[in-house]
Amino acid sequence: MSQHFTPISTLGEFGLIQRLSDRLADIPRSPDLIEGIGDDAAVYRAGEGILHVITTDALIEGVHFDRTFIPMSFLGYKAISVNVSDVVAMNARPMYATVTLGIPRNMSVEMLDSLYDGMRAACKKYGMELVGGDTSTSHALYLSITVIGEVAERDVVFRRGANVGDFLCVTGDVGGAYAGLKILLDQRQALKDMGDDYEPDLEAHQYVIQRQLRPNARLDMIDAFKKAGIRPTSMIDISDGIASEIHHISTKSGVGATVRIPALPFDPETRAVADQFMDDIDAYALFGGEDYELLFTVDPSQAELVDGLEGCSVIGNIEEATKGIRAYSPDTGLLPLHPAGYQHFDPDEDNPDNFGLPESKHIL
Amino acid sequence: MSQHFTPISTLGEFGLIQRLSDRLADIPRSPDLIEGIGDDAAVYRAGEGILHVITTDALIEGVHFDRTFIPMSFLGYKAISVNVSDVVAMNARPMYATVTLGIPRNMSVEMLDSLYDGMRAACKKYGMELVGGDTSTSHALYLSITVIGEVAERDVVFRRGANVGDFLCVTGDVGGAYAGLKILLDQRQALKDMGDDYEPDLEAHQYVIQRQLRPNARLDMIDAFKKAGIRPTSMIDISDGIASEIHHISTKSGVGATVRIPALPFDPETRAVADQFMDDIDAYALFGGEDYELLFTVDPSQAELVDGLEGCSVIGNIEEATKGIRAYSPDTGLLPLHPAGYQHFDPDEDNPDNFGLPESKHIL
Repeated sequence: MSQHFTPISTLGEFGLIQRLSDRLADIPRSPDLIEGIGDDAAVYRAGEGILHVITTDALIEGVHFDRTFIPMSFLGYKAISVNVSDVVAMNARPMYATVTLGIPRNMSVEMLDSLYDGMRAACKKYGMELVGGDTSTSHALYLSITVIGEVAERDVVFRRGANVGDFLCVTGDVGGAYAGLKILLDQRQALKDMGDDYEPDLEAHQYVIQRQLRPNARLDMIDAFKKAGIRPTSMIDISDGIASEIHHISTKSGVGATVRIPALPFDPETRAVADQFMDDIDAYALFGGEDYELLFTVDPSQAELVDGLEGCSVIGNIEEATKGIRAYSPDTGLLPLHPAGYQHFDPDEDNPDNFGLPESKHIL
Repeated sequence: MSQHFTPISTLGEFGLIQRLSDRLADIPRSPDLIEGIGDDAAVYRAGEGILHVITTDALIEGVHFDRTFIPMSFLGYKAISVNVSDVVAMNARPMYATVTLGIPRNMSVEMLDSLYDGMRAACKKYGMELVGGDTSTSHALYLSITVIGEVAERDVVFRRGANVGDFLCVTGDVGGAYAGLKILLDQRQALKDMGDDYEPDLEAHQYVIQRQLRPNARLDMIDAFKKAGIRPTSMIDISDGIASEIHHISTKSGVGATVRIPALPFDPETRAVADQFMDDIDAYALFGGEDYELLFTVDPSQAELVDGLEGCSVIGNIEEATKGIRAYSPDTGLLPLHPAGYQHFDPDEDNPDNFGLPESKHIL
C-alpha cells in the first residue's frame, strides 16, 4: 500500500488519461491494433480491408444525470447515442452494443423496462443490436455502454489527420444541449421557489431540451459525406464543447486552428434561451458540450462540397501549430481559445450550478 | 411515467435477464450475429471463418468487493480475469479490453496507479491490450470491463452443445475462492473482536485467498484442449458455483445432468478451511462461486483424453432432460440439485454474512 495520498483532482482529466495510458505502455502491441487510447474509439483490423472500432462511455447518476430531470427511456436512448457518436466520429457504423447496469433499490421493474425501451429505440434508429450485458445492485444508477462499429480501412478518419490549410467544419447546430440544461435547471429552481404554484413551461423549449435529454448521434452524416464525395481529414464528436474538441484535433494533428465565432451555427431556440438569460451564446457552443455533432476538417478542395451539404457549416481554418488555437470575431479580433469543457456536477457537493461552468471545472 | 413500482428483486436474476432480453426481441438481427444475450459472451462473424466474441462485467464496491479486503492491484487483475474467463468459456482468446471507471473522491492517484498495475499485469498474462476507457467521478468505486476475443469458427464452443451421454468435466480445483472468502471474513471478525491484539493469520491460506482476490482465467486450457485433441461440446466458466452453471448448460442444451459429488476436485487448503469451520465442502464447490474454472462436456469418445489431461476431472454425466439436474453421493443417493448461486453482499444492509449463502440469495 502506498504511503502517499495524492488527490486525483490534482491531475486534471487529460493528465489522468495520460498517466493511465503511460502506465500501460509496456504491454506488447498487436500489429492489428491501429489506434489505442487517444481517439474517439480504438481501431483494430478485423479482416482484409475491414476495421472494427470500439468505444465505451458510462453515465453515472449524480454525475452525468439527475434522475429527477430525465425520463428513463431518454436516459437509455442517450446512453446509446453518446457511444454511437464516438463510433461515427471514426466515420464508422455501429454494429453491436453491450451494457453493464448498476441498479439501485429505488428503481422499479417499470423504470428498468422504460430504460430498456429507450435503448431499444436507439438501437433500432442506428441499426445496431444490444448483444450482452451484466446487471448488479448498486448505490446509484450506473450505465456503462460499449459499442463496436465497422469501417472500411480506406474510409476510417482519425483525430490526427488535419493539415494546415484545411477548413474546419461542423454538422448541425451547436450550443443547444447547454441551452436545454439551462432551461431544466431554471425550471427546477422555479419548482423550488413556487412549490404548488409551479407550472412547468417547457413547450417553447422542446428542441433544446431534447438536445440535452435525448440527443441523436449523427450517423446520417456518414452516408451524407459519402454521397457528397466528402472525405474528412480529421473528425471528432462534440461531447465537451468545440473549444475542447478543437484542442484534441490540434494536439493529435500537430496543427493550430482559428474558429470564426460569427460562423457558429445556432438554432433559433438556442438563441432565445441565451437572450432570456442574457448569456453569451458563443460560450454555449464553445464550452457547453453534449451537442454530439461532428467537428471535422476537409481539404480546401472540398470546401465547396461542404458548403453545398445541408446542415454543414465551415467555421474556421487549420493553421500552423505555432499559431495555437484561436477564436476570431470582428469585435475582439483574434484571441486564444482555451479548452474549458463540459462540467459534470459534483456528487459530493450536490450543487446543480456546477453544470457547464468553465470557471469551476472539476471533473476528474 | 409508470404508475407501478414493482421491486426488481421480485424478478430474480434470471427473470430480470429474461425480461430485458425479451424487451429487445424486436430489434432486427444481423446475419453476422451468431449468439446474442444468453451465453458467456456474444459471438459475431468478423471475417471469413473468424468469429469475435464480446463480454462485459462490472465490479462494484460494496456489492462485488470490499475495498478493505482487496488490494487495488488485485482488484484490477481480477476485473480483467473475470471477463477473460467468459471469453475463454467460448474457447476463444482475448484480444482487447476497454474499461469504464467510476472513481470516488477517497481514492488517490497512488491507488489508481495500483489498480492499473493490476490490469496491466493481467493484460500481459493473457496477451491482450487495454485499448480504451472512460473515467468519471462516482460515489463508490465502479469498474466495468469489456473484452473482445477471437476464435476460429470451427473451434467455437457454446453452452448449448451438450448431448445426452456426454461426460461432464471441470478444470482445476473448485470451492477455493469461497474458502478464501471465509478466511477473510473470519479475519475481519477477529480484527473487530480483538482490536490491537489482532495478528493476521493468512500464510496458511495463501492459495485460497489468492483464489478469491486474484483469480486467473483458464486461458491455458484452450491450448491444452487443442494439444490433447479435446473438443468440448459445451462450456461455461464457473462464476456462480457448479450448481448454477450446470443449470445454464442444461437449459441451453435441453438436457439433464448428474454431478457425482465424490468426484469434485478440491485443493488440500480448501479442505482444511472447510474442516476448520465444520462446513460441508461440497457446498463450497456447488454454491460458492468465483472459482473461474471451466465446466465443460465432451463426447464419451473423448473421456480418456480428459482423464489424461493434468488438472482436469470428469465429475458427472449428461442425461435426458426428463431426469433433471441431480447430485449423486453414496451417502444420499440421487438428489435434485438446485441452482443456488453466488451471493453478492447487499449494499443496503451492510451484512458481510450475506456472502455466499444459498439460503439468503438476494442478488438482483
